[in-house]
Amino acid sequence: MEKITFEYTDITGGFWRRIQQTVSNVSIYNIYKRFSETGRFDAMKCSREKAEIVDPHIFWDSDIAKWIESLSYIIEKEPHADLEAVADEVVDIIEENREESGYFNCCYLSKFPEKKFTDRTDHELYCAGHLIEAAIAYYNSTGKRKLLDIMEKYVDYIYKVFFIDKSAAFTTPGHEEIELALVKLYRLTNNKKYLDLAEFFIDSRGQKNEREYNGVDHKYSQSHLPVRKQKTAEGHCVRAGYLYSAMADIAKIENDEELFDACRSIFDDIISKKMYITGGTGSAARGEAFTIPYDLPNLTAYSESCSALALAWFAARMSIIEPDSKYADTVERIIYNNGLSGISLDGKSFFYVNPLEIRTELLNRNTSQANTSENLPITGRLEVFDCSCCPPNITRFISSIADFMYTYQEDEVFVHQYIMSKTQTEHFIISQETDYPNSGRIKITAENIGKIALRIPFWCREYEIFLNGTRAEYILDKGYAYINLNGAYSEIELNLKMTPLLVYPSPKIHDCKGTVAVMRGPVVYCAEGIDNEFPVSEFVISGTPEFSEEYSDYFGTYVLYADGKAPRDEEHLYSFDPPEYEQAKIKLIPYFGFANRGQSDMEVYLLK
Amino acid sequence: MEKITFEYTDITGGFWRRIQQTVSNVSIYNIYKRFSETGRFDAMKCSREKAEIVDPHIFWDSDIAKWIESLSYIIEKEPHADLEAVADEVVDIIEENREESGYFNCCYLSKFPEKKFTDRTDHELYCAGHLIEAAIAYYNSTGKRKLLDIMEKYVDYIYKVFFIDKSAAFTTPGHEEIELALVKLYRLTNNKKYLDLAEFFIDSRGQKNEREYNGVDHKYSQSHLPVRKQKTAEGHCVRAGYLYSAMADIAKIENDEELFDACRSIFDDIISKKMYITGGTGSAARGEAFTIPYDLPNLTAYSESCSALALAWFAARMSIIEPDSKYADTVERIIYNNGLSGISLDGKSFFYVNPLEIRTELLNRNTSQANTSENLPITGRLEVFDCSCCPPNITRFISSIADFMYTYQEDEVFVHQYIMSKTQTEHFIISQETDYPNSGRIKITAENIGKIALRIPFWCREYEIFLNGTRAEYILDKGYAYINLNGAYSEIELNLKMTPLLVYPSPKIHDCKGTVAVMRGPVVYCAEGIDNEFPVSEFVISGTPEFSEEYSDYFGTYVLYADGKAPRDEEHLYSFDPPEYEQAKIKLIPYFGFANRGQSDMEVYLLK
Repeated sequence: MEKITFEYTDITGGFWRRIQQTVSNVSIYNIYKRFSETGRFDAMKCSREKAEIVDPHIFWDSDIAKWIESLSYIIEKEPHADLEAVADEVVDIIEENREESGYFNCCYLSKFPEKKFTDRTDHELYCAGHLIEAAIAYYNSTGKRKLLDIMEKYVDYIYKVFFIDKSAAFTTPGHEEIELALVKLYRLTNNKKYLDLAEFFIDSRGQKNEREYNGVDHKYSQSHLPVRKQKTAEGHCVRAGYLYSAMADIAKIENDEELFDACRSIFDDIISKKMYITGGTGSAARGEAFTIPYDLPNLTAYSESCSALALAWFAARMSIIEPDSKYADTVERIIYNNGLSGISLDGKSFFYVNPLEIRTELLNRNTSQANTSENLPITGRLEVFDCSCCPPNITRFISSIADFMYTYQEDEVFVHQYIMSKTQTEHFIISQETDYPNSGRIKITAENIGKIALRIPFWCREYEIFLNGTRAEYILDKGYAYINLNGAYSEIELNLKMTPLLVYPSPKIHDCKGTVAVMRGPVVYCAEGIDNEFPVSEFVISGTPEFSEEYSDYFGTYVLYADGKAPRDEEHLYSFDPPEYEQAKIKLIPYFGFANRGQSDMEVYLLK
Repeated sequence: MEKITFEYTDITGGFWRRIQQTVSNVSIYNIYKRFSETGRFDAMKCSREKAEIVDPHIFWDSDIAKWIESLSYIIEKEPHADLEAVADEVVDIIEENREESGYFNCCYLSKFPEKKFTDRTDHELYCAGHLIEAAIAYYNSTGKRKLLDIMEKYVDYIYKVFFIDKSAAFTTPGHEEIELALVKLYRLTNNKKYLDLAEFFIDSRGQKNEREYNGVDHKYSQSHLPVRKQKTAEGHCVRAGYLYSAMADIAKIENDEELFDACRSIFDDIISKKMYITGGTGSAARGEAFTIPYDLPNLTAYSESCSALALAWFAARMSIIEPDSKYADTVERIIYNNGLSGISLDGKSFFYVNPLEIRTELLNRNTSQANTSENLPITGRLEVFDCSCCPPNITRFISSIADFMYTYQEDEVFVHQYIMSKTQTEHFIISQETDYPNSGRIKITAENIGKIALRIPFWCREYEIFLNGTRAEYILDKGYAYINLNGAYSEIELNLKMTPLLVYPSPKIHDCKGTVAVMRGPVVYCAEGIDNEFPVSEFVISGTPEFSEEYSDYFGTYVLYADGKAPRDEEHLYSFDPPEYEQAKIKLIPYFGFANRGQSDMEVYLLK
């Protein structure tokens, strides 16, 4: 199967149009300003003098790269001449300041050019990877190939140093990313060298002891085992997600069953044991890492924005190989929850850490809770932070969200995500009329499609499908309803019953014991202190609560109200009598919108 | 009121006799051996050469002191000529190696004698305090006054340096303890100087900025405010408990209402907001400290053995001043739970940290939980540890447990604790026949007592009192049943209904949400993995469970069985269907006996 990339799809209205507009009109400018102010654009000049004033970090190239990539996706649909001029200028600066060899890294070139490729724990190859992705995106949307030429030359140099001469001080990157970028570059250019290099990095990983950060083991960078022997998700979640994505890419290209088995096994390990209900991963601030099964604390969740995105990209690659709705279900879980909570509703600011619970009284005080977020606050997003990997990652994710919608092989089309849109490829025309995720009613028109496979989302318990006004005949297999269209113009109506539902976390999740979450369609809800008069952590939801719904323009979706009870305020710590409760109604907002209205308590899980 | 000290009471059988025998026959020897092996006894020679081999810690004097104090309490009742000879030898060594001035501290004298009293954060005055307590105890039980003389001379020196010359580099000790010891010394000798010095330390505390450990604020050592302005419990829990004890002592001696108000307010803050159900305090490993109200995590509880004991001593002092059962209730909570869990059932090994929950899969692995206990394990007690404050503290506590039983004023006697025993003072004869805490039936005989006040324990919901075979007339006031005996020989029977009860923690305690604990009388219960086939953290207790009881000789009290349900093992993380449960019965053991049978999961709180 192949993906129908976002370029072919116009998001014409509804939920995602609004968010993409915010990113296009606000976020991309705001990130530009903040990156300028913090010296990131300037740093591309690789000036040793400047480096003493504004110390370039080892990952600043990737910040700029992801900004260019985001911009590319935006200008694919809507011109931004001002920012395109900025991008052109950055490309010129990179061209001027790279080494003769093709090497470019603003941190190394300005601070210690003699040390390049000596430290595996630095991010040179990671930055190169993001610059490759930026180059491809910029070329695709503008037709300008200067950055692509620059990066092809740089990759030739990397190929020589790592693959031919083996003259670098290490074999595989400490932070994966370049592998998936090389596959993209191979796909664009058809130059086998790039695929060889990607496969070399993948196949060499975990084959010998390479340098790791102090105090972490080889799991941290997924270097503990050869990749085909890895069966569980381990280590730094973002590194992991990028590696697994590249593994899936290569498994597909090479039809490598062993590699695909490793990918599937890792994927299943994540979704069945190590993933938050929001699609987030990373339970521990220490190592920003996968930990052990069911270790999913809410208050101290790390759940980095980037790691959610990385899992979505991994899942999407898996859905290209194997038709099973668990992959697109995971994408859906992420795009409406942890993938979206990372950006503020106004598009200006961002989260790195996405907790599932906030208790303001525990913050910045001497409490029993390690404060994972002294630099990365959890009660309000920041416009820029030192380690600003997330902001431009979120903007490139949102701007190319349509990438997740369709895959096809021959005349069979899979519909993975429901988004108001029009798509036209060389082969197919397909459109969706829907205000999903606000309702579960989707009208699809399709032309020239032999068979269509509609994903029935994991959260949906009842649905109906109509084809040209009558009940459709379909075969349900691994979460997809397959309908024969035989190439005819077809009108399909999919009605997914969408009501608020209680979600029961596994009793094995320590922090969730005795609680439930609430979802409406794919959207996870949470309660914020600001909306409720009682402490939200003490509210108890009724057995089978009555929900009421109210559309909120502020959140762009529904807020909910649920019946339950809140304890009366009592002084004693321990009592032989049960606490007294009074009837109460709790207001729930979509999780992606938490912490937009000042510091407030927040709970995804409610006592039951 | 005055306390009837333990010397007047013989514990003649039952629960505490057995534990005291273990301490007397096993613990005191074992601690001696371990302290010898680790060079602590040897270190008293203050040899600079030896110090290079075995580095004496700044608190080793206090380890030896508390061992001597424990031994003193033991030989008050039962001779141990071998260990008494050891103690005599240590006293000789101290006499030989102290400074001409009277100063003694094995760490300072062997390592940097020129630096004495220059660093407030060191433990010189703390060690001196423990040596004073040891000297008093040893004198009281053996009549030997050499150590007492040594310590009186040392105190004279401290008095000169701190009170007269003010020549030390600091004014008040960083770790409190000497204050309460000075009060004891004053009470023994009637030398007002000692009281003056104690009051000087108390009154000077928090009056000016004194040096604190790096990274902690002045709350750490309760130096943030003058003591009379302190209204909440703050900082390091052991330091706090010793300070509050001395404050209560002085409030009583000086009839200082303002100081007593501060004590009462602090005590109420602890028991209503900052105390574990086990009587433990200290929620955070960081600072071993009180944190904010209701911040009482179970898994990462610090709840140091010493801090529970310190709270018991503080509470006992309060009960001398003000007849209110909340004080003796707190003592009872501690002596049957956190105060006793610190020592293994065989008497050989000890806990520093006493968690309320153990999840073995989270230990020593890369998980989201900070491992508070890398050096101080929580799944098995150690025979000795580097910071071995707890072992000899627990032995002195248990050996003098009868200290908590009675107070009196004129011919009125308060019975605070129920322990099988015989007591004879110059004024009263009183005995208790009971197997408390295994049953709630207590037969008391009393002679020469005008009025007796029997504490009705906090956990008791129904009780009967008989005087000489007929129902007694009594007045209940602040938790005490007052009965007129008019000096006559009297037989009193107190029947406290003792059945297993559910305890409801405040909904404000985050880690206890949706759970209950189980108590039987004063004993808190817990479930261990080793006794149960299902994961104890996932068990759900029935609404009103049926309990069955079974006497366990191993634990010296009852084990319990309760009905409930355990979830079927299911794979999914999140489900729209509630988890499936099967009927199950959980075995509960007394909390004080946890972690005696190998590494195992443990839960005090069960889902409800």
